[in-house]
Amino acid sequence: MDDHQLIVSDMKPLSRRHRVPWGDCDPAGIIYTPRVLDYAIETFEIWNRDILGVSWTRLHREMSMGFPTVRTEIDFLNAPVTDDEIVLEMTVENLGRTSLTSIVTGHDGGGTVYFQVKIISCLTFTPDMEAKPIPDEFRQRILAYQTACQDNSLHIIKN
Amino acid sequence: MDDHQLIVSDMKPLSRRHRVPWGDCDPAGIIYTPRVLDYAIETFEIWNRDILGVSWTRLHREMSMGFPTVRTEIDFLNAPVTDDEIVLEMTVENLGRTSLTSIVTGHDGGGTVYFQVKIISCLTFTPDMEAKPIPDEFRQRILAYQTACQDNSLHIIKN
Amino acid sequence: MDDHQLIVSDMKPLSRRHRVPWGDCDPAGIIYTPRVLDYAIETFEIWNRDILGVSWTRLHREMSMGFPTVRTEIDFLNAPVTDDEIVLEMTVENLGRTSLTSIVTGHDGGGTVYFQVKIISCLTFTPDMEAKPIPDEFRQRILAYQTACQDNSLHIIKN
Amino acid sequence: MDDHQLIVSDMKPLSRRHRVPWGDCDPAGIIYTPRVLDYAIETFEIWNRDILGVSWTRLHREMSMGFPTVRTEIDFLNAPVTDDEIVLEMTVENLGRTSLTSIVTGHDGGGTVYFQVKIISCLTFTPDMEAKPIPDEFRQRILAYQTACQDNSLHIIKN
Repeated sequence: MDDHQLIVSDMKPLSRRHRVPWGDCDPAGIIYTPRVLDYAIETFEIWNRDILGVSWTRLHREMSMGFPTVRTEIDFLNAPVTDDEIVLEMTVENLGRTSLTSIVTGHDGGGTVYFQVKIISCLTFTPDMEAKPIPDEFRQRILAYQTACQDNSLHIIKN
Repeated sequence: MDDHQLIVSDMKPLSRRHRVPWGDCDPAGIIYTPRVLDYAIETFEIWNRDILGVSWTRLHREMSMGFPTVRTEIDFLNAPVTDDEIVLEMTVENLGRTSLTSIVTGHDGGGTVYFQVKIISCLTFTPDMEAKPIPDEFRQRILAYQTACQDNSLHIIKN
Repeated sequence: MDDHQLIVSDMKPLSRRHRVPWGDCDPAGIIYTPRVLDYAIETFEIWNRDILGVSWTRLHREMSMGFPTVRTEIDFLNAPVTDDEIVLEMTVENLGRTSLTSIVTGHDGGGTVYFQVKIISCLTFTPDMEAKPIPDEFRQRILAYQTACQDNSLHIIKN
Repeated sequence: MDDHQLIVSDMKPLSRRHRVPWGDCDPAGIIYTPRVLDYAIETFEIWNRDILGVSWTRLHREMSMGFPTVRTEIDFLNAPVTDDEIVLEMTVENLGRTSLTSIVTGHDGGGTVYFQVKIISCLTFTPDMEAKPIPDEFRQRILAYQTACQDNSLHIIKN
């Protein structure tokens, strides 16, 4: 459990920077709408690997599980353009018995929020894709992350 | 207005078929989540060209307008796999002063709904992206489409 | 072999139409370069299913084979823009012991070639991805297709 | 010219790391072929901004120029799988009057080359897309980069 403690003390909202490439923008010069969901799901994937401690590949191949998205809500607030650097941050809104509600926020690091993506995922067992209770090991890591994020609250989003 | 009448009598929910290519599926063999938003936005783009009568290119270049998505909600009900043929249908849920709420449903043509995507778009003028009332010509076409769709209601989705 | 005969008499160069969506174009208003390879590989995938008679899913799951691309060469001759309708046609240039050289041409149906993509694929067995001789059943279908294409030669490309 | 000198002394082959996301892989678990061209063109885009000193946005909007790809050749040597970290490096093979031949290599940092992409780009003036001689300022930067890369030769690729 020392391993677990270490992670907790270390935890902040997972954050990564992504510069919008030319090819993700449309003829109007702004980001093409669906690319926002690509960025959010990729952030969730990284969170699975780095915070939950299990890559989707390992989850799928070794544990016969998946964490598919069952619902998503996206608010497009300000459209980024080519070369804009987006800060992508993920927080946990709710942890249910079989489901997890996450929020991925894309902002410019200076007060402008580009988009906010709510992702509701459900832990399933393959191949029948049946919903199962989230295993305790995952549950503890998620709760620890949630606590750590509250302590390092994302002022930019809350204000 | 004869032109308009013609369109009304002819109208059904816009529907297109799309076979899920290998490259849109992930290592679990099912559609990669963000591709669903690609399919929905492409359906909305086709609807703009075929029903509203103005392609996004013409809207952008000749009319200095855009119809960007301001919010979207997606319910992932059943995951399509490679080679599944998806029927994509679009209906109008609500027409506001400056905004349009559309629903793109992806189903298998036999009673199974894969996903349902709500798209809220807002008519804007470029380059400042300011919201503007939807022009009357568009408004009439949208209302006529909405009426025509009710007459040819999508039983598969309602049941 | 009656089945085979039927296919031969029926065969023409596989051809499909694809309208360039808004999201495949960049801020300069022309197709984003990598999308051309997407179109070509999707055409090759359809050819596998419709001409070779085996979808990539079945090839992978039921036959433990794959037909990965080992080399590709693309000539970008004229850049399509949003809403352009591209005719995508595939011909076979060479059939080797373990490899197949195909050409996917994208043109406008009226004499303008947008791009030409050479795809060299190699039949492999999974999971070790070892090259294997192309099975006889495939070989016969490929040769028949090649013959049929010569009889219905693609004048637009040859002139 | 001090600015220029500084760049020269500093220069190494442009290199970036990219972890292959789940969504870039196909149902066989390996990278979907066209994504390799996405990675290569994005590397070339970054090179334009960081080495040539002009982002594609500025090149397009402020200078009415573009650097479109006219031909590309890709060798797929080893297929990366999900979570593999690819090192992407770009070198200049040839500088012509109006064109530039670049090589983007994707390797694992330990001797295994995943793919090698040759990109031939041509400097054009918009909107007529006419080829023009590469401006002297660009030419000097390209030659300096080429020299610097030779001094820090990519052993992994040459052996």
